[in-house]
Amino acid sequence: MKNIFFTPGPSELYYTAQEHIKQALKDQIPSISHRSKQFEAIFAETVQNLKTLLQIPDQFHILFTGSATEIWERMIQNGVEKHCFHYVNGAFSERFYQIGLELGKKATAYHAQEGSCAAIEAGQIPEDAELIAFTHNETSTGAAQPLEDIYAVRKAHPDKLIAVDAVSSLPYPDLDFQQVDSVFFSVQKGFGLPAGLGVWIVNEKFVEKSKKLQEKGIGIGSYHSLPSFLSKAMKNQTPETPNVLTLYLLAKVSGDMLQKGIAHIRKETEYKAALLYHTLENHTFLQPFVKEKKFQSKTVIVAETRQDSYSVISYLKNNQLIVGSGYGNYKPKHIRIANFPTHSKEQIEMLVDRINDLKNYTSA
Amino acid sequence: MKNIFFTPGPSELYYTAQEHIKQALKDQIPSISHRSKQFEAIFAETVQNLKTLLQIPDQFHILFTGSATEIWERMIQNGVEKHCFHYVNGAFSERFYQIGLELGKKATAYHAQEGSCAAIEAGQIPEDAELIAFTHNETSTGAAQPLEDIYAVRKAHPDKLIAVDAVSSLPYPDLDFQQVDSVFFSVQKGFGLPAGLGVWIVNEKFVEKSKKLQEKGIGIGSYHSLPSFLSKAMKNQTPETPNVLTLYLLAKVSGDMLQKGIAHIRKETEYKAALLYHTLENHTFLQPFVKEKKFQSKTVIVAETRQDSYSVISYLKNNQLIVGSGYGNYKPKHIRIANFPTHSKEQIEMLVDRINDLKNYTSA
Repeated sequence: MKNIFFTPGPSELYYTAQEHIKQALKDQIPSISHRSKQFEAIFAETVQNLKTLLQIPDQFHILFTGSATEIWERMIQNGVEKHCFHYVNGAFSERFYQIGLELGKKATAYHAQEGSCAAIEAGQIPEDAELIAFTHNETSTGAAQPLEDIYAVRKAHPDKLIAVDAVSSLPYPDLDFQQVDSVFFSVQKGFGLPAGLGVWIVNEKFVEKSKKLQEKGIGIGSYHSLPSFLSKAMKNQTPETPNVLTLYLLAKVSGDMLQKGIAHIRKETEYKAALLYHTLENHTFLQPFVKEKKFQSKTVIVAETRQDSYSVISYLKNNQLIVGSGYGNYKPKHIRIANFPTHSKEQIEMLVDRINDLKNYTSA
Repeated sequence: MKNIFFTPGPSELYYTAQEHIKQALKDQIPSISHRSKQFEAIFAETVQNLKTLLQIPDQFHILFTGSATEIWERMIQNGVEKHCFHYVNGAFSERFYQIGLELGKKATAYHAQEGSCAAIEAGQIPEDAELIAFTHNETSTGAAQPLEDIYAVRKAHPDKLIAVDAVSSLPYPDLDFQQVDSVFFSVQKGFGLPAGLGVWIVNEKFVEKSKKLQEKGIGIGSYHSLPSFLSKAMKNQTPETPNVLTLYLLAKVSGDMLQKGIAHIRKETEYKAALLYHTLENHTFLQPFVKEKKFQSKTVIVAETRQDSYSVISYLKNNQLIVGSGYGNYKPKHIRIANFPTHSKEQIEMLVDRINDLKNYTSA
């Protein structure tokens, strides 16, 4: 019997992915040229499906990198001359902020408690900050910033660039792209694909900024600068030979999600999240790490364990259910459960049953 | 019937790759954590197999990027403070040189004729150049710089860094790694794998240079700087979630190549290359583009066509044999044939038979 991976990325493959891989091999997709019409059609299909699925407006471009980590770097390089501002509430938002510093920018962080999110208030964001970085879903703690907070910041700072790390939340959030400038994710989480592809959704305003930096002689990188990306994307191509197989799979899986319907996926996600939080709230030695309901992520559910988390993880593993350990210092104290579109209601119910079994195990 | 891809990358998958992909899916490799022991074992196996296969000395590190194009950028960032020198003889060596300029360095190029290689002479390399870039196998033209030329430059410039683009030649060349500092390739060529992974083989001398640049406050990037790479590689990990599936496949295919024996692979490569060049030399309207035998690549064989290359490519395609078109301006005038380890003697003989058929087609 196979394991079911509820790890928050890499995670369980989307349930159609394996069939698409077999078809890709049959059609020799890994051997086609990335300068061929066949590749251009795959690129165009991926972009079109993502635009439809996530309701991405026309003035946005969709670009492909090696990872979401790469997008952190490219975003700072292409969008920030001097100063970027970061809301930080965990290991991944912290890493994004650190990349700003490593690239020689003045980066400023507003720290919120881990397991919570910043209470957005006027005056938090320095006047000369050019880019405001949100981590919509902090994968290390399971805290999600409400979209309304992002929109409030947009209203207060219409001229700044707003960047949203949605690595472990998309396609779930019904994000209004008109109110942000740059959004990104990696395919091994909500889209259930093999890792090795980052997706960068970026608008013309952001592109204009990168061109201004270039004119000023500020380094914006080489093959993966925004102007270089766009010179190829307009032909449905990439600057380098990309991860063609995973790009093909993203076209197919986003097509499958369109067939299923994004509203259906969102509703299911909310049902499964409610079930998981209910289970944790009524457990004897597990409880949600994120206390405030409005900050509780629907896609990465993190539980505090009264005892060592290792015995919980082991018990579930013995039942072929693989959950994530806590991140960093939380390793012995947390478990992390991904609730992605590939995870069916039945699978989450099975997981919940086993978590409830644990109440009777005093050794656990 | 399936096509056989003789395109110079992406190309035909290594003949064992498909079975390894099936096994990877069975073992749920795409779902495992890149911070798990299981991943670390895959990383270690890949490094060990490549070190054994290519006889890479201990003081070299093997690092993984999204593409070989990325390695061009990382190498300039991490190895060059001010000045890099490039031997340029085609589109890819030219692109490497351009990346030096785009990253704000003083880059100097020594141009050789396309379809040939530089005649190495004293005085070509500026005294203050810190890095000397060779493109061992210029994929756009099929010209290969003899290894002895690289060694001669090492002897004359022992203190400079020597970088070798072996993207479309490895694992064929029997390169003496003691005489170079940085070598790189991408997996979709000689190793016959799905694209989306670059392999950077780099020594301690190069790492020291990157640390010196960092101390001077010169930007060497963030997550993919050499110090960041190494802090993870020492644990058999990567800074970001990498292309785990292709990394696994690289472990397996390099293992298969070890079983077959690198000497055997090299001998076969030379036999097949000799057959292809012999065919071109005796053809009525095809001839080798690279005239000087010492510069003729063994892994990418480029033919000039007296007429439009399109009819040649079409005739072969109708026989399920896919060869590459000419690169850039050579598109209508050349065909490019990959001779990689996955291409069997029988497949090359079949291709040669069809190329010989063409002699009788006056329309072609």
